Amino acid sequence: MAENDREEILQLIKEQGEIIRKLKAEKAAKDVVTEEVEKLLQLKAQIADDVQPHKFVLKCPKGTRDYNPQQMAIREGVFNTIIKCFKRHGAETIDTPVFELKETLTGKYGEDSKLIYDLKDQGGELLSLRYDLTVPFARYLAMNKIANIKRYHIAKVYRRDNPAMTKGRFREFYQCDFDIAGQYDSMIPDAECVKIVAEILTSLDLGEYKIKVNHRKLLDGMFAACGVPDDKFRTICSTVDKLDKTFWEDVRAEMVDEKGLNPEAADRIGHYVKFQGGMESVELLLKDETIQKQKSAVEGLEDLKLLLVYCELYGIADKVMFDLSLARGLDYYTGVIYEAVLQGYTNKPSAKEEESVSVGSVAGGGRYDGLVGMFDPRGKMVPCVGVSIGIERVFSILEQRVLASNAKIRTTETEVFVVSAQKNLLEERMKLCKELWDADIKTEQSYKRNPKPLDQFQYCENNGIPLAVIIGQSEIQEGVVKLRVVATRKECVVPRNTMVEEIKKELAQLSRDTTGINNPQTAGGKCC
Amino acid sequence: MAENDREEILQLIKEQGEIIRKLKAEKAAKDVVTEEVEKLLQLKAQIADDVQPHKFVLKCPKGTRDYNPQQMAIREGVFNTIIKCFKRHGAETIDTPVFELKETLTGKYGEDSKLIYDLKDQGGELLSLRYDLTVPFARYLAMNKIANIKRYHIAKVYRRDNPAMTKGRFREFYQCDFDIAGQYDSMIPDAECVKIVAEILTSLDLGEYKIKVNHRKLLDGMFAACGVPDDKFRTICSTVDKLDKTFWEDVRAEMVDEKGLNPEAADRIGHYVKFQGGMESVELLLKDETIQKQKSAVEGLEDLKLLLVYCELYGIADKVMFDLSLARGLDYYTGVIYEAVLQGYTNKPSAKEEESVSVGSVAGGGRYDGLVGMFDPRGKMVPCVGVSIGIERVFSILEQRVLASNAKIRTTETEVFVVSAQKNLLEERMKLCKELWDADIKTEQSYKRNPKPLDQFQYCENNGIPLAVIIGQSEIQEGVVKLRVVATRKECVVPRNTMVEEIKKELAQLSRDTTGINNPQTAGGKCC
Repeated sequence: MAENDREEILQLIKEQGEIIRKLKAEKAAKDVVTEEVEKLLQLKAQIADDVQPHKFVLKCPKGTRDYNPQQMAIREGVFNTIIKCFKRHGAETIDTPVFELKETLTGKYGEDSKLIYDLKDQGGELLSLRYDLTVPFARYLAMNKIANIKRYHIAKVYRRDNPAMTKGRFREFYQCDFDIAGQYDSMIPDAECVKIVAEILTSLDLGEYKIKVNHRKLLDGMFAACGVPDDKFRTICSTVDKLDKTFWEDVRAEMVDEKGLNPEAADRIGHYVKFQGGMESVELLLKDETIQKQKSAVEGLEDLKLLLVYCELYGIADKVMFDLSLARGLDYYTGVIYEAVLQGYTNKPSAKEEESVSVGSVAGGGRYDGLVGMFDPRGKMVPCVGVSIGIERVFSILEQRVLASNAKIRTTETEVFVVSAQKNLLEERMKLCKELWDADIKTEQSYKRNPKPLDQFQYCENNGIPLAVIIGQSEIQEGVVKLRVVATRKECVVPRNTMVEEIKKELAQLSRDTTGINNPQTAGGKCC
Repeated sequence: MAENDREEILQLIKEQGEIIRKLKAEKAAKDVVTEEVEKLLQLKAQIADDVQPHKFVLKCPKGTRDYNPQQMAIREGVFNTIIKCFKRHGAETIDTPVFELKETLTGKYGEDSKLIYDLKDQGGELLSLRYDLTVPFARYLAMNKIANIKRYHIAKVYRRDNPAMTKGRFREFYQCDFDIAGQYDSMIPDAECVKIVAEILTSLDLGEYKIKVNHRKLLDGMFAACGVPDDKFRTICSTVDKLDKTFWEDVRAEMVDEKGLNPEAADRIGHYVKFQGGMESVELLLKDETIQKQKSAVEGLEDLKLLLVYCELYGIADKVMFDLSLARGLDYYTGVIYEAVLQGYTNKPSAKEEESVSVGSVAGGGRYDGLVGMFDPRGKMVPCVGVSIGIERVFSILEQRVLASNAKIRTTETEVFVVSAQKNLLEERMKLCKELWDADIKTEQSYKRNPKPLDQFQYCENNGIPLAVIIGQSEIQEGVVKLRVVATRKECVVPRNTMVEEIKKELAQLSRDTTGINNPQTAGGKCC
């Protein structure tokens, strides 16, 4: 906008303002005033975008977010639960760069490849941000010629998807992956992955859940039985994958109208994707004459039978459900696939924008025996099976729960605050802090020369700091400090030369008294 | 290479091979054979690059690396030490996205801006990978209108610099940042940052180190006193920053020849950058008549005096050294700056390529009072001071130390391995594993249906697993299991229904007996 136009509009705004003031003074009819106010707002809108023409936009990139200290505390709690489970199953951990050579990711994600973030060509290699942790893992195995490993990897991945941040759907998000690589006997590692999903979801206490299982070979056999041409298996599979968040009619329409499948084949698929349940459903399909003719389908069903037996032995049969409509989007799966869904979170869309990710899905994975071979120069295969925990959805649920409960989360672990009772005691406080830090006691003090005592105590209460060490002229002269239990305000005097010892005793007592350091309200000290 | 050429060379290789075989059969002189072999190798080299013309390159992007489980174990140990220190000083933690809006990073890094990684424009916002954690922190404070916070942030940052990976210089690397934001009294937070550097370097046990301190105001005052024009302060500062890894002559040449400073001014700078030492050096400069005339220089020196007093109180005076040649490259510093250097690691270049980063520098930081104001819509300032630990260098040193010592690092925490003594006991093993996992005991088993007993015990020994639970037909019949302490091979029999209890006792005993779980060699169990 030219400066002249701008000045003209500002003049019009001024005049319009006077008109309105005049009308109000004359107590004009309400709708007359409203009409003139409307005109004023329109004038203001004309220059609004232009008030600071080069104004800096203060935001995170679309689809990303910061984690504040409260969110970090929740995040760390969730990670600890998950890592504890991975370690309970004997996993090591690795890390890989956040970006890979672009060609490393090429041809691994099927229709989702368009969602990959590429880096700008600034000279040198062409790079892309990792899309998941599975492809980098396969690249790592091939590069280091590793034939056996059980590892977890917790890191951020990147997808240029349509974000829905309140539902925990981001463009930058964490994945927590556990994978078992190696040539082993059928379904033993696969069942352990399913067991791990069950252990994690149970210990995160997110309510009821189901782990749906299926098998890519069964899907392929079923597609063949239904008359889907070989070269359409993967794309039809992608469409079937949408069944958990959209209706059969839409899925059928996509198969027929977009992907050119003949309607009879689509209807036959419609028949089979209804199969779900326990062992009895698997047995039922094994007796289906059309399915029986497909070698691949029978192999898939035999695998699933064995998986369900092992799940029974692992005590999770009630959580696991065979579901022939489960497809999983990614190209690289070759065997068993699974996905965990929280009950009580709706999956079917209420609006178009929700269609691309199932909101109730919190974990998924499967077997991918061919992926490492795609990287190995000699095509050497390393069979793999793994699971990925979709942690952002879990964060969202837990954050909302904390918000709803009004619970206060401590974001620091400070044990002691050094309080000066009078002015000019900064140097004395510094000596005390040094002594406490050197004794590995988590200690803070005010960063002001002469803070007010009340402000210092208030800080302790606001931040849940259990103990205050108080120093004043008289304490210095007597060679003592005062200890105060913040929650009860009880105080005691301890000699300066046994201060560290006394504080450690007091902290131990306080943590015994309370259910946890997060709740010092009920604390009662020993000496205080 | 055309297919014809290739075939021709393959034919020549075949013929040359026959020549060599013939010579060998004839027992020809060694040097004659060697000569012909040489010819063969040259022929082979001609097609070597060409064997798989579209061969996939199996590597990490330039300047990046994977972390294998051993490296991860070291990394986690270092992070724990650092986080422990940050928490001891009452810090919270936050996280920010790996990329920012490009304009968020613009104008913050001076001459280093060329090293920023940009993302490809795929529609939507223009993005760049974060270059450090300080600018995202300032953006976070301004965006959330936070006036006080003490936070740490451990995350990867990205620089398109010339990598030197064996020296721990990468394009993707971790920073561990601790910052104190807020309007506080002079040098109190600043001194705590220096204290934190000292605590961390001491507890990481990396040998002797020094923390050099200087002040941007003193540098500016000194530049003014030497006759550097105002608009050249920042660029001359960047050149002075190279003094820790290059010689004065080169620095002087850059100032005069590249940056157009007059030679007299450069020589005056050459005089002052030699000032270094303790309080006495600061006092000496305060008496310098040229310096005294510069208000900014005197303010800087007064700050430094106070800082040194506080460092004395914090018990780290022997580690801290004033050094007027310390400049720090980044534009945003406004007050005290510091950098920690390990002794015994050479800084001066032996080759050109080493010039851009000091290999001995492991931590650095300073005060940046203007950065948050650059983001705030109303320019509201939030004074900040912070420190960044250069962790990659630390990893390199510790990795080399582990390699040199031949120490074996455990990369898993598995406590129990379930061993089957005979065939066909998979289901029994699964039941045992379930029971142990459900009791939160870290347990593994073989993923084979019928693993050999010897292989199973070997696995325990290779992986430092302290206990084996052995099951065979006779144990099943008697309702017992056998426990074996792997290190001593002592065994005992415990009833199946008290197995979990007995294992927990045994593990507790083993961890008491050993200095740590990493060294079960000296273990002696209780029941075994």
